[in-house]
Amino acid sequence: MSDNPPESPSGGRWQLDRIVAELRLSREETHSIRRDGEARRAPSREALQAILDGLTEALFPRHYGQFDLDGENIDYFVGNRLSIALDGLCDQIHRGARFVGDELIPGYRREDAVELTRQFGERLPVVRGLLISDLRAAFVGDPAARNFPEILIGYPGMTAIIHHRLAHILDGLNARLIARLVAEIAHTRTGIDIHPGASIGSGFFIDHGTGVVIGETAIIGDNVRIYQAVTLGARHFPTDDDGHLIKGDARHPIVEDDVVIYAGATILGRITIGRGATIGGNVWVTQDVPPNSIVTQATARNKQG
Amino acid sequence: MSDNPPESPSGGRWQLDRIVAELRLSREETHSIRRDGEARRAPSREALQAILDGLTEALFPRHYGQFDLDGENIDYFVGNRLSIALDGLCDQIHRGARFVGDELIPGYRREDAVELTRQFGERLPVVRGLLISDLRAAFVGDPAARNFPEILIGYPGMTAIIHHRLAHILDGLNARLIARLVAEIAHTRTGIDIHPGASIGSGFFIDHGTGVVIGETAIIGDNVRIYQAVTLGARHFPTDDDGHLIKGDARHPIVEDDVVIYAGATILGRITIGRGATIGGNVWVTQDVPPNSIVTQATARNKQG
Amino acid sequence: MSDNPPESPSGGRWQLDRIVAELRLSREETHSIRRDGEARRAPSREALQAILDGLTEALFPRHYGQFDLDGENIDYFVGNRLSIALDGLCDQIHRGARFVGDELIPGYRREDAVELTRQFGERLPVVRGLLISDLRAAFVGDPAARNFPEILIGYPGMTAIIHHRLAHILDGLNARLIARLVAEIAHTRTGIDIHPGASIGSGFFIDHGTGVVIGETAIIGDNVRIYQAVTLGARHFPTDDDGHLIKGDARHPIVEDDVVIYAGATILGRITIGRGATIGGNVWVTQDVPPNSIVTQATARNKQG
Amino acid sequence: MSDNPPESPSGGRWQLDRIVAELRLSREETHSIRRDGEARRAPSREALQAILDGLTEALFPRHYGQFDLDGENIDYFVGNRLSIALDGLCDQIHRGARFVGDELIPGYRREDAVELTRQFGERLPVVRGLLISDLRAAFVGDPAARNFPEILIGYPGMTAIIHHRLAHILDGLNARLIARLVAEIAHTRTGIDIHPGASIGSGFFIDHGTGVVIGETAIIGDNVRIYQAVTLGARHFPTDDDGHLIKGDARHPIVEDDVVIYAGATILGRITIGRGATIGGNVWVTQDVPPNSIVTQATARNKQG
Amino acid sequence: MSDNPPESPSGGRWQLDRIVAELRLSREETHSIRRDGEARRAPSREALQAILDGLTEALFPRHYGQFDLDGENIDYFVGNRLSIALDGLCDQIHRGARFVGDELIPGYRREDAVELTRQFGERLPVVRGLLISDLRAAFVGDPAARNFPEILIGYPGMTAIIHHRLAHILDGLNARLIARLVAEIAHTRTGIDIHPGASIGSGFFIDHGTGVVIGETAIIGDNVRIYQAVTLGARHFPTDDDGHLIKGDARHPIVEDDVVIYAGATILGRITIGRGATIGGNVWVTQDVPPNSIVTQATARNKQG
Amino acid sequence: MSDNPPESPSGGRWQLDRIVAELRLSREETHSIRRDGEARRAPSREALQAILDGLTEALFPRHYGQFDLDGENIDYFVGNRLSIALDGLCDQIHRGARFVGDELIPGYRREDAVELTRQFGERLPVVRGLLISDLRAAFVGDPAARNFPEILIGYPGMTAIIHHRLAHILDGLNARLIARLVAEIAHTRTGIDIHPGASIGSGFFIDHGTGVVIGETAIIGDNVRIYQAVTLGARHFPTDDDGHLIKGDARHPIVEDDVVIYAGATILGRITIGRGATIGGNVWVTQDVPPNSIVTQATARNKQG
Repeated sequence: MSDNPPESPSGGRWQLDRIVAELRLSREETHSIRRDGEARRAPSREALQAILDGLTEALFPRHYGQFDLDGENIDYFVGNRLSIALDGLCDQIHRGARFVGDELIPGYRREDAVELTRQFGERLPVVRGLLISDLRAAFVGDPAARNFPEILIGYPGMTAIIHHRLAHILDGLNARLIARLVAEIAHTRTGIDIHPGASIGSGFFIDHGTGVVIGETAIIGDNVRIYQAVTLGARHFPTDDDGHLIKGDARHPIVEDDVVIYAGATILGRITIGRGATIGGNVWVTQDVPPNSIVTQATARNKQG
Repeated sequence: MSDNPPESPSGGRWQLDRIVAELRLSREETHSIRRDGEARRAPSREALQAILDGLTEALFPRHYGQFDLDGENIDYFVGNRLSIALDGLCDQIHRGARFVGDELIPGYRREDAVELTRQFGERLPVVRGLLISDLRAAFVGDPAARNFPEILIGYPGMTAIIHHRLAHILDGLNARLIARLVAEIAHTRTGIDIHPGASIGSGFFIDHGTGVVIGETAIIGDNVRIYQAVTLGARHFPTDDDGHLIKGDARHPIVEDDVVIYAGATILGRITIGRGATIGGNVWVTQDVPPNSIVTQATARNKQG
Repeated sequence: MSDNPPESPSGGRWQLDRIVAELRLSREETHSIRRDGEARRAPSREALQAILDGLTEALFPRHYGQFDLDGENIDYFVGNRLSIALDGLCDQIHRGARFVGDELIPGYRREDAVELTRQFGERLPVVRGLLISDLRAAFVGDPAARNFPEILIGYPGMTAIIHHRLAHILDGLNARLIARLVAEIAHTRTGIDIHPGASIGSGFFIDHGTGVVIGETAIIGDNVRIYQAVTLGARHFPTDDDGHLIKGDARHPIVEDDVVIYAGATILGRITIGRGATIGGNVWVTQDVPPNSIVTQATARNKQG
Repeated sequence: MSDNPPESPSGGRWQLDRIVAELRLSREETHSIRRDGEARRAPSREALQAILDGLTEALFPRHYGQFDLDGENIDYFVGNRLSIALDGLCDQIHRGARFVGDELIPGYRREDAVELTRQFGERLPVVRGLLISDLRAAFVGDPAARNFPEILIGYPGMTAIIHHRLAHILDGLNARLIARLVAEIAHTRTGIDIHPGASIGSGFFIDHGTGVVIGETAIIGDNVRIYQAVTLGARHFPTDDDGHLIKGDARHPIVEDDVVIYAGATILGRITIGRGATIGGNVWVTQDVPPNSIVTQATARNKQG
Repeated sequence: MSDNPPESPSGGRWQLDRIVAELRLSREETHSIRRDGEARRAPSREALQAILDGLTEALFPRHYGQFDLDGENIDYFVGNRLSIALDGLCDQIHRGARFVGDELIPGYRREDAVELTRQFGERLPVVRGLLISDLRAAFVGDPAARNFPEILIGYPGMTAIIHHRLAHILDGLNARLIARLVAEIAHTRTGIDIHPGASIGSGFFIDHGTGVVIGETAIIGDNVRIYQAVTLGARHFPTDDDGHLIKGDARHPIVEDDVVIYAGATILGRITIGRGATIGGNVWVTQDVPPNSIVTQATARNKQG
Repeated sequence: MSDNPPESPSGGRWQLDRIVAELRLSREETHSIRRDGEARRAPSREALQAILDGLTEALFPRHYGQFDLDGENIDYFVGNRLSIALDGLCDQIHRGARFVGDELIPGYRREDAVELTRQFGERLPVVRGLLISDLRAAFVGDPAARNFPEILIGYPGMTAIIHHRLAHILDGLNARLIARLVAEIAHTRTGIDIHPGASIGSGFFIDHGTGVVIGETAIIGDNVRIYQAVTLGARHFPTDDDGHLIKGDARHPIVEDDVVIYAGATILGRITIGRGATIGGNVWVTQDVPPNSIVTQATARNKQG
């Protein structure tokens, strides 16, 4: 655009032409991401946030819905929200499949996204039942909880498990990019990072929650309670003969029913925390813990000032 | 709606009718949340966020306000923001009281929300004074802090304490659901989780802040400084004879004046951290700490690779 | 406004006049923030968020851009986004310089903000190159990562490093208030708190990330990997003879190339973590660590329940 | 606010205090509008526009609705839109009744607005039938019309009659302020000004429409076609003995079935345009016109230039 | 939904179920508009408004664009606006073709919309040239016009001709539904109703404009000036042997170069207004007018009061 | 951008590069509008609309304001709205002065815009008094008017006169471009086109209004009532010796007190309509009308069908 002297004296305020050209060069050099000229839409985090809000409103219309709902209008509200949310989800799943290339199934077609979304929708009533069990677990497990609405609207642990149960369905249906984005939206909203692959039973409660990390292959039983900054992580990352990471291997803990894990505990590797065990705050666990045992941390030394 | 063949062939794309019916069934079965047909609005997190932003703008108009403010227009701006925010807060308090049922006082009437909001408004100038003391504490306590605006606009610890001081007034006025929602909004915005019931003196400073948890019955003196991932939590959850949690009991630490608690420290139970004590990073404290003492953590063992 | 009886009976619903007057009094008493009547706009966090989103869209147009981009329209999109973002950034830098007073250079003039913004723009292509190295590091370092788009759109560690590399340029150009605000926006979005002054090499990857804190004077080499809740902090805060904090001193760790630091590790003071070292989870390190060494934490004691 | 010298030097930029005081004085002097201190919300034109859009979407969901509608989701969409629109309308009717004071019925209570809104809703299916007849009339009457969607989405005459049929129900239910606002919204959107009191039969078509005025007591039969700038107005405004206007009297024309009135015709007074008559463009009619007659205008004189 | 007694006592507030069912019945009975279950999106007036605004910004970037434009960034702005607007237009053309069924060409495919949009884009520079001639005509023709920006930003006649020249291209490419919607958007915005089929030469100026109607087959030469409320309409609507309107026939006036038509003149039928003629205000013309002639109206009779 | 083969095959979908280049060429060729490279912001119609809404809210806070206003908060609301509106207006006046070049005064400086805006603000209370007289005139003059709120919120004539009285002040202060834009905003909103230069006395009422045109040099007395489609226009446009229009000359009618002008009347030239005269509908007046006279139109001829 240098042939435009009256409009563009000497490169301009920001030298846009040069920066734009260098950024294009950078895209072409790395071209790590896309190789052809065909336009594909990336999945949109903003669109997914709206879809998740719509699904949450459909699941708990009286707590998240925008206006007075009673017996007369509630089903219209729910049906309309679902319709919009599922249409939107189908579009995002399609984008994800096209953008990444190897999602879902070989020979992916748009109809696959429709079928998958249909299966996702079918499972929503079961998800609602699980979330009610989570809600009750929170009420029972937190002495500061005074009522259900407080938990449903306010607790980050509730937000996180709503998102996870939706992400986990998507992951199971191989819509992994979208599932992962749902998990990261929950992470941003709550500080709780649950990989969509993690399997979690009913009556699950995370209190406070900031800093919780639950890995891809973790398996959690029923009625488990977890506090802030708990990690259910991997110990070693297995590599193949060429030193490349082996992806997808079972490498995170199994936590059986009725376990409580206090704040800051770190539990690593494919070990089993037995039914009814209690893991104390800030401990570091890398071996199996027997059922009903209690694991605690060494106390600190005091030094008079 | 199956009597509509030209429009609805074989259940449709998402089988909305079936999902909507199952979700309704799920609501009716659990009916844990509402039992009658009368419509009640849940408090709105989005509305509360706008109210909190309005109050913050009224408290610090030159740092958060939307346009040039000087001596001529600043009071109009403040008065207008307050008017909108207090009207909105009154509505949310009313929703909360109606939605939960046992908030505020027995025999709750709408006038109670008005009176309570009036009392809330009255305390705002005092809150501003406390927040100025917090601002100064941050400037004094953080070597990276270069000026007040940086702290006021940027520091999550400042955001958290602004929200907490507002939530604490609401909690003291028994508007507990709203108070809790304010606290959770702060938690989402900062990663700092302070229960609205916690009592905090002047000159309070949380640096970095992510992962800090301060429990419902904690009592914190003046000039206390806390770093990220510190927990002031409960040790045991007392249960009654039937095994139900006893709610509301004093179960969190008392932190006296001039205490510093470094990152990752966990302080549990109704213990007292004496005036001027220093709690080192990552330590685990479950017993009283004498005044002016220093508590530190065992060092790690090095293993040559 | 008490002379308006038909409109204002007995102080009104909220007693706005009184609250407004008391807040004005509070502003005048503390007057810690502004001393003259001239109106100055504070930098706007919302505006900066939009600017950061625009820059990110310009850097990775196919992943964050709003519509189908191909070879025909991509440069127009990039140039337009850059133009808007740089104009906006220039305005924010100017606000920051005027609001704080001692930013940038003595005798600051508006042209300085323009020049500084121009220098910022020049460095964007180099920043993109570094971010591609970070993206590859994430793919190599995380067994759960399946593709680049997942990392770019989803991973908080990626969001954090994009923001940091932009903030670090601003910090180097002395636009420190704006740099700090960028860092705090990243902190809010990811739970990762990196001071803009921290120097970070290529191929940097933070996994999960919540609770990570990296201090102002930290220096990090190439190909470093960090997990959630890691702190690279200061040990002591040096004070001058009058007991005031000395600001800006080198007080945070140096982390050499190829180091891995697992979750929850706390590394404090101007120590050096030697090339290729591995720091285990939850350890507390306050002394130099030799190259290629492994530092791990004492295991917990099990107590049978 | 003059007691605030550091903030408000010499009255300020705009002398807001003085203007505000003078405007308050002006309100008090005229006090034509409100006499007590109680706050009442005026009906909101913006809210009514949204309500009208919602009703239009419910009546013609495939032409105005926001997304793909088929047999599966269309009823949920319609029910949800109706629910929101009727709730909103009820609120506006209530505001109107309270704001004006003498609307609806003596001894007005909130329940009256609910009952009235219910009756309004009941009539919507009949209104839809009438609007379909209007749509067909437009297709038959305009040689430029190629299809129904063009008319429904594009023609101002269609927009005007949709609004009028809704406003006319409201007027019949005595919600006159709201009815009038609906008519004025249509006026703004189309340039067609139909008083809500006007009675209009089926198959009504206004072509082009700008400048059409139809008065309060006009009665229009079936299959009438009208062009732009036609006035069906009053001739004299009867006054009582004191010279005050007598309001509500029948003073506008009766137009019988199958009449066509061309552009710019002015028809004034309680006269009757007989069945099947044709009124030519720009004519001025103040007396009855017999059935099947044609009324035309004198031709212009040409003056050679 | 009557099987839901706890939620829906006795039909509810608005009897939604009944209204929804009746509206469905009404849609099925008339089914004038759509006959199958497949979902098709109607063209969106809101989307078209945004597209038109985008095109206008691309044509006159310094007058309608959103921010400071100079030689450096203006082409990026223009290219980006065009890209978004043409993508959007292509989508609307596609919707229109699918919604109506017989638009464009038999055997319509999506590629046809792309090709048509491409041809539309090609003509934009020529359109800009014509619009500059219109702008100059306005400046020359209106004694109240003081400068070009006033005309470009403010004059409804300018808005109308910008929209018309775009609509006319679309009409010529057979995208008639979209062309018509563009014309109606202009009608709503300006009160000027020009059918997209009308052919208009360069240097066209409409002053004031409200109420102007120009019919589908009108042909207007260069340098024509028209005032408010002028009609260039049809006299008779020819019908075929069955009494149906014959659509598309030439039935509107031909206005040759350099004609001026004053306010309120009505010119009907396929007549010719000869070069340089002047048509006085409010006259009614249904026969050819020779070149350079002046046609005026009979004066009114005065009646002493 | 043709050097980017992987991204840009053969010119792309829309051939953006070519269109952008041709549009740039078109801008350079005509360069009728701007000649240098310096960036100037055009005044913004959208911004002016918001400013006008803000001023209207400040003038009639209870009818246009967004929330419950009573004696306590109304002055804060008014002051805040005024502050924002006057700041915005000042900016638009500045833009206008800079964009056009010859506005306001020779040697224009930014302070001139401030001074002018201050003078504009001073006159608002007087404007409010005039508008109350207009409101009363509407109530007295329209038999369909039932109450003041209906007129204030609903009547386009009221909207038009509010805008005009504001535009007229701006015009008197030489901010002519902005004044004209205000007038055109009113024109778009109401179909009523009053040039800001027109001088209008108190108690002015326009009923229905669509198509009314009042020219730049018209002078209207007190208590004048006008109906739709009335023109107060110019007869001849005087030209100088070179045939150029002489701009600004007195060329529109003088309408004395207590005149009524019915729909469609056209009054042209610098003639005087004497006090108390009545001008009938659709008449064409080009000579003085004596006081208290009545002017009516010839009746149409009826032709039996």
